[in-house]
Amino acid sequence: MKFQRPLYLLFSSLPPSHSSHPFISLSLSLSLRLCVFMAPSFESPQQPEGEIASDNNTHDEVLQKSRVTVVGSGNWGSVAAKLIASNTLKLTSFHDEVRMWVFEETLPSGEKLSEVINRANENVKYLPGIKLGKNVVADPDLENAVRDASMLVFVTPHQFMEGICKRLVGKIREDAKAISLIKGMEVKMEGPCMISTLISEQLGINCCVLMGANIANEIAVEKFSEATVGYRQDREIAEKWVRLFCTPYFIVSAVQDVEGVELCGTLKNVVAIAAGFVDGLEMGNNTKAAIMRIGLREMKAFSKLLFSSVKDSTFFESCGVADLITTCLGGRNRKCAEAFAKYGGKRSFRRA
Amino acid sequence: MKFQRPLYLLFSSLPPSHSSHPFISLSLSLSLRLCVFMAPSFESPQQPEGEIASDNNTHDEVLQKSRVTVVGSGNWGSVAAKLIASNTLKLTSFHDEVRMWVFEETLPSGEKLSEVINRANENVKYLPGIKLGKNVVADPDLENAVRDASMLVFVTPHQFMEGICKRLVGKIREDAKAISLIKGMEVKMEGPCMISTLISEQLGINCCVLMGANIANEIAVEKFSEATVGYRQDREIAEKWVRLFCTPYFIVSAVQDVEGVELCGTLKNVVAIAAGFVDGLEMGNNTKAAIMRIGLREMKAFSKLLFSSVKDSTFFESCGVADLITTCLGGRNRKCAEAFAKYGGKRSFRRA
Repeated sequence: MKFQRPLYLLFSSLPPSHSSHPFISLSLSLSLRLCVFMAPSFESPQQPEGEIASDNNTHDEVLQKSRVTVVGSGNWGSVAAKLIASNTLKLTSFHDEVRMWVFEETLPSGEKLSEVINRANENVKYLPGIKLGKNVVADPDLENAVRDASMLVFVTPHQFMEGICKRLVGKIREDAKAISLIKGMEVKMEGPCMISTLISEQLGINCCVLMGANIANEIAVEKFSEATVGYRQDREIAEKWVRLFCTPYFIVSAVQDVEGVELCGTLKNVVAIAAGFVDGLEMGNNTKAAIMRIGLREMKAFSKLLFSSVKDSTFFESCGVADLITTCLGGRNRKCAEAFAKYGGKRSFRRA
Repeated sequence: MKFQRPLYLLFSSLPPSHSSHPFISLSLSLSLRLCVFMAPSFESPQQPEGEIASDNNTHDEVLQKSRVTVVGSGNWGSVAAKLIASNTLKLTSFHDEVRMWVFEETLPSGEKLSEVINRANENVKYLPGIKLGKNVVADPDLENAVRDASMLVFVTPHQFMEGICKRLVGKIREDAKAISLIKGMEVKMEGPCMISTLISEQLGINCCVLMGANIANEIAVEKFSEATVGYRQDREIAEKWVRLFCTPYFIVSAVQDVEGVELCGTLKNVVAIAAGFVDGLEMGNNTKAAIMRIGLREMKAFSKLLFSSVKDSTFFESCGVADLITTCLGGRNRKCAEAFAKYGGKRSFRRA
C-alpha cells in the first residue's frame, strides 16, 4: 500500500515542543478540506531506506567502534561537534569521545582557546553560551587530533583546505572516511575543483558532503532544521553519516549526488548576490522571486554542465531550494550586494 | 550547437532600465570565474518553440483577428487588462479593443465604476493611479461583454465562477478559448474541481491557466515579473496566450501541465499558512526554509495524487517555487497565520 499517511504532515517532523501547539492541527482543516486524500508515504529522513533506525550493532561492530574527529572549530564546526557528540553518546557504534581540532588562539584573558573549550565545555569565541557536550575534546595538534579517527568531519574555511590536506597526507588511518561541510570550491588554472574531490584525491579516502539551510546559531539553540548528505556510491557510509548527524531537531537525508549537493552549497551564493541587487534597487517581491527561480534553474544547468550525473531532484532537497531561500533572504552575500546596489555601485563590496 | 549563451544571464531578461546598471555585470566576475563555461541556451519565453516572435500574420489571420474580453475587473483583472491592451495594440492578430466586464458599483461620488473607468481610463477603485490603456472598454453587461470575444480571460474571485459560468452558457462564441487567472478550487461533495475544469465543462471550451509570482500592484508599475501558462494539449493556443500576455517586464512561459500549474496556485496558500505559524512562533530561518521546502514537496506529492500527469519540472516554474516564495514571505495567508500563532491561537483567523 503506497499511500499511508495523511498529506498535511508539514509539522510532523518538528520536535514535540512545537508540534504539540494546539493550533498547528488547524492547518489541516484550512486545507480546503483536501485532507480527505492521502499522500504518498514520504521517506522518513531519520530512517533511510534499508537502514534500521535503532543502533542494532553486531558484536563485531561494537568491537570496531568508529572514532570521530571534527577538523575545524569555528561557528559551524562547533555546532557540528555538538550535534555529533549528542549522538556518539547514544549510539553504540561510535566511541563517545569526539575530538575537535582547534586552530589555537590566545584569548584576551591570556588563556589558550583549546584549554578554555576543554575546561568550560564551550567555544567561548565562536559559539558562546552553548555547551558542546562533555565528550567533545578540543585538540590544537592537527596530527594528533586525526590519528585514531575513522570518521573525519571537515569544516574549515575553504581556502585552508588545500594546506590542511597536505599536512594530513600519511597521517590518517587508511580506512578513514571523510565528510565535508565546507561551502565553496577551489578554482585552479586547470578548472574548478570541488572540496570533496580535493579531500578524496589528496588523502585517498571516500568523501561525502553535508549541505543545507543551516544557519549555525539557530541549530545551536536546537531550532528545527534539515540538511542533505551527498554521497558518490557507498550508501552504507552515507547512512552512517546520517546517523551521526541526525537529531530530532536536525533532520538529514542522503542523496546519491555528491557533486549536485556540493555545487548547491557553492552556487547559491552567486544567486544571493543577484537577490541582493534586487533588494538594493527596490525591484520588488515578484522580481526577487523570479531571480531566485531563474537562479535555481541556472544552478541546475551549470551543475549539469560540470557533472552530467547531477540530478534535478537534488535541487528540491534542503541543500537546494531551502538553502537558496535562507541565503537569498538573510545571507552575507545578499547583504553586501544590497548595500553595493544601494550606493549605486560606488562602494566596494568590502566596504558594503 | 547546444551551448550558446554565457550562464550568468540572471539579469538578461530584465528590462533595459535595470540591466543597464553598470554594476550588474559585476555578478559575472564574482561568479568564481565560472563564467568561462557556457550554459545551455534556455528557451526564450517570449519566443516559444516553433513560434515566430514577430506577429507575421497571413492575410486570413488578419481577417480573423481575435477579440479579447477580460471577465473581472478587480486588482489583478485590471492589471491583466493593462498587459493585454498594450499587446493588442501592437499585434495585428488581435483587435485593439479589450473589453473588460465590470461588476457594476456606485462610487461614493455617485458615479458608476464602469463609467469612471471609461472616462478616466483607470480603475479608480481597484487599481488607482494606473492608466489601463485607451483601448480598454469597461462593460457592466456580462453577456454583452463576452458576445463577440474569441478569447476569454477569467479573473474573478473563485467563489463567483460557478454562477458566472451558468450565466454564460449559450452566450459565448462556439470557437472561444478561455484562460483562468483564478487561484483556488471548488470543493464539492464528489471531490475537488479545478476552476479550469469548471469553465471547460460548463462552457464546452478549451481552458488554459496563468499562474505565477504575480503581486498585481508590482506588475502594474511594470516591475519585472514572470508567469506560467499551463495548457492541456494545444500548444498553439498556449502560444497565443503567451503572445497576449508577454511584455518586456512580464515574461510568460508555457508548460503542458494545466493541472500542475493550477494546483501550484492553490496549494501554495496552505504552505503559506504553515510558514506564517513558523514566523509567529519565531522558529527561525532554517525552519522556515525547511517548511517551505517540505511544503513544495507535499504540493508536488498532492498534485500527483490528484493528477498523475503532473510534472516535477512544473514546480521549478514561476507558478511553483517562485509563487511559493512570494506567498510565504508576504502573502495574506502567511500574515493571518503569523498573527494567529503569535496570540497562541486565541484569536480567530478572521480577527488576526
